Amino acid sequence: MEMKELLEMGKEISLLGKFMTLASWDMETETPEGGMAGLGEMMEYLSGLYYAKATDPALKAGLEELSTQELSVRDAAIVRKMKESFDRMAKIPQDEYMTYQAILSRSQNIWAKAKRENNFELFKDTLKEIVYYEKKFAGYNQTTEKSLYDVMLNQFEKGFTTEKLDEFFGLLKAEIVPMLKKIQESGIDYKKPYEGKIDADVQEKYNKKLAEYIGFDLSRGVIKRSEHPFTTNLNSDDVRFTNHYYEDKMESALFSTIHEGGHGMYEQGVAKELDHTAVAGGASMGVHESQSRFYENLVGRSASFWTPIFADLNKAYNLNMNLEDFMNYINRAEASLIRTEADELTYPLHIMIRYEIEQMLFKDEITVEQLPEVWNQKVKEFLGIDVPSDAQGVLQDVHWSGGMFGYFPSYAIGSAIASQIMAAMKKEMDVDQLLLQSELKTIGAFLDHHIHQHGAIYTTDELLNMMMGESFNPQYYVDYLKDKYTKLYHLN
Amino acid sequence: MEMKELLEMGKEISLLGKFMTLASWDMETETPEGGMAGLGEMMEYLSGLYYAKATDPALKAGLEELSTQELSVRDAAIVRKMKESFDRMAKIPQDEYMTYQAILSRSQNIWAKAKRENNFELFKDTLKEIVYYEKKFAGYNQTTEKSLYDVMLNQFEKGFTTEKLDEFFGLLKAEIVPMLKKIQESGIDYKKPYEGKIDADVQEKYNKKLAEYIGFDLSRGVIKRSEHPFTTNLNSDDVRFTNHYYEDKMESALFSTIHEGGHGMYEQGVAKELDHTAVAGGASMGVHESQSRFYENLVGRSASFWTPIFADLNKAYNLNMNLEDFMNYINRAEASLIRTEADELTYPLHIMIRYEIEQMLFKDEITVEQLPEVWNQKVKEFLGIDVPSDAQGVLQDVHWSGGMFGYFPSYAIGSAIASQIMAAMKKEMDVDQLLLQSELKTIGAFLDHHIHQHGAIYTTDELLNMMMGESFNPQYYVDYLKDKYTKLYHLN
Repeated sequence: MEMKELLEMGKEISLLGKFMTLASWDMETETPEGGMAGLGEMMEYLSGLYYAKATDPALKAGLEELSTQELSVRDAAIVRKMKESFDRMAKIPQDEYMTYQAILSRSQNIWAKAKRENNFELFKDTLKEIVYYEKKFAGYNQTTEKSLYDVMLNQFEKGFTTEKLDEFFGLLKAEIVPMLKKIQESGIDYKKPYEGKIDADVQEKYNKKLAEYIGFDLSRGVIKRSEHPFTTNLNSDDVRFTNHYYEDKMESALFSTIHEGGHGMYEQGVAKELDHTAVAGGASMGVHESQSRFYENLVGRSASFWTPIFADLNKAYNLNMNLEDFMNYINRAEASLIRTEADELTYPLHIMIRYEIEQMLFKDEITVEQLPEVWNQKVKEFLGIDVPSDAQGVLQDVHWSGGMFGYFPSYAIGSAIASQIMAAMKKEMDVDQLLLQSELKTIGAFLDHHIHQHGAIYTTDELLNMMMGESFNPQYYVDYLKDKYTKLYHLN
Repeated sequence: MEMKELLEMGKEISLLGKFMTLASWDMETETPEGGMAGLGEMMEYLSGLYYAKATDPALKAGLEELSTQELSVRDAAIVRKMKESFDRMAKIPQDEYMTYQAILSRSQNIWAKAKRENNFELFKDTLKEIVYYEKKFAGYNQTTEKSLYDVMLNQFEKGFTTEKLDEFFGLLKAEIVPMLKKIQESGIDYKKPYEGKIDADVQEKYNKKLAEYIGFDLSRGVIKRSEHPFTTNLNSDDVRFTNHYYEDKMESALFSTIHEGGHGMYEQGVAKELDHTAVAGGASMGVHESQSRFYENLVGRSASFWTPIFADLNKAYNLNMNLEDFMNYINRAEASLIRTEADELTYPLHIMIRYEIEQMLFKDEITVEQLPEVWNQKVKEFLGIDVPSDAQGVLQDVHWSGGMFGYFPSYAIGSAIASQIMAAMKKEMDVDQLLLQSELKTIGAFLDHHIHQHGAIYTTDELLNMMMGESFNPQYYVDYLKDKYTKLYHLN
């Protein structure tokens, strides 16, 4: 098989997959309540066509032939990625794949209802089915990995085994837990710097401007509303993200814009020629999260970022906040229940809770029924607080309803990579000065050059080495957190 | 082949088609400028899969087998409709079909740009290609029809040949043209009853309430914005329409809501069990338009409809209109350039212009290049006015960019059917009294019972006969127009 022919087959698989993406996007942002079942039926049908294309024996033969040939770096990466996908999917029998897709097409609504009604029972049986299939599929794909959970992790973050993650989280825990204790003992409590509600339409208008300000291209992108913010794309010229506007906490949408905008700019920056190839997306979920967290935390929570636009924000929301109060508030650290609203310091603790629970689940040390109980114990252990309801506990995240076990560590990995990238960037430019001058473009260009354009051609470590001659190193992240929170809370 | 198996094949074809519907919906309402090409590429690919499914030889064999069997009325209609679709599509070679789909996936944007820039030249070559393929495909399908244009008409409105339409339009023209002359000589000129602009967001909010008021179910429907209002659906529980909010003429959106709402309630009222069968949609385009025009004109332009909600309208838009002035204004008759904004009396003249031009085009009496010139001549002939620009002339309608030649007569047929339905309804209930009491549900129930629930199982004439023992009869429409405008302009 010629490479050209393989690219054509890959494109067909991608185009079918993008119809699924479009249907999901519609379900999250547009489909009326009555239409959910109909969209689910459409997706179930298309998943059968997708499976047939993705496991076509001609594709297997072509991939094997091309694996032995001398190829460009790009083409070799495409063949490798396609081979991995093929092997993963072909091991799953078609009927099991389709049954599982049908479950997934319904599960998100079931979870959403259970969360809305604070009733884990409503979600329990569906979650059991999901865990059953995820374990079964992981079993089909367990080769060199030590455990089923390592298979799960490997899907999202190659090379990040439980062994490596235990080390990473161990380092973090040793630094964060004592620091959080000191902060709690400091007596400092940064207050919310505004009162009253900000109308959702007003927020939406301002947040679109903010997205453009940081560099998200709205002529090649869409921003809509959904229950939970997320980013997706149909190709690099059609990247979409959502937001949710809480009228009593306007900062939530601001940081969702900056976070999802970071994901979106990554997708918009991938070289156009990679569209509909196996290397079209980000290098890994961790690298993807590194971009969103780079913008959200390292850019978006800095005074240099807000200084030139703070008067605009006050004006748009008809407020009269003081910049220092705002900075202290959006950077404050406190143990809280909801991961997506957690501050930078306690955020990794939320990830560790999920990481430990998922491992226990995949080792059969706990059952799905025990999840609420175990969840509440872990929250007490890591954050020292009681969970008042499952809606604010085990039901809070969307991931499990989509079968995404093993994904959460990517958030922490991404935060660590973001700090590492910032260190590399600061060697080349005065980032604070650029922010003060609203020169977000220069920052975006650095990321485009070193990260975005390459899509998934290179691994995480290859990208980092190309950029700064160093592999993944979480010490940058630990140093950053220590420095930031020591100053903010006048510790030592 | 068993009927069950045929239904399964039909459902697969429908599900694929609904993904095309979803992609179109997205292109009209959401896709960013940069993403248009990508969506077009997705649709082109899927059209190939659709063609393969829709022309599967096993389907042909099954249809032939089932055509000879005793079936229920519903199943016989499904077999007949599927056979017609199969025969029509199978005659077109796949490469021509796909080439044409690729043209159509781009043509709407090209037309929109040409209209925006008032430049027919930009659209000319694409329109030539569309006409070329439509003629070619009609040629493949010309069997008993007298002319290529009859083939076109037959797609949208079975039984309505040029012969029958000439008679219908002849009757209308003989009545309307002299009446319009008298109105112009009457010296009566009903003025716009308000000044200033109404914010689009305010209009959107009110129009959603209005849609619900007339009976459109938002738990099984969506209303969004687009350049031109239209209605579509994924199934009977997911019906979607759009609107466009002009700030200086708020009445435009009101009547679009009532018009598209009429289409939408038709789709929502089709029996659920018909979803994804060949009889899932409306009985014909004319019957579909009869529902939209029934609501828009016979309900929505009546004083009985507005009386109970007029204070709400004034309040929502912060206006102080007088009901009588409003009624006179929304019912005034005057020759104008734009079909979609035309009043009830001059509307059919706009249709006749298109009907005559399309016939000339399909008889090769004129070329695509000559369209602007011929258009302007016809407008002068029928309406007595000069066309100042192609944007307000030959480029105004979306239909030709989608290859929909032969569709326009359905609008006039629909208006005629609407009057006929109203006559039948008035035999059973006091429609004005129901409107005054906001009892729109009773009106909707009549239409659901006699029209909506049946989908496309029956033909137009069968539906009318079942309802009132009479076939299509345009005299009701002519009488209605004469009566209405004689009173409104104090004629005779």
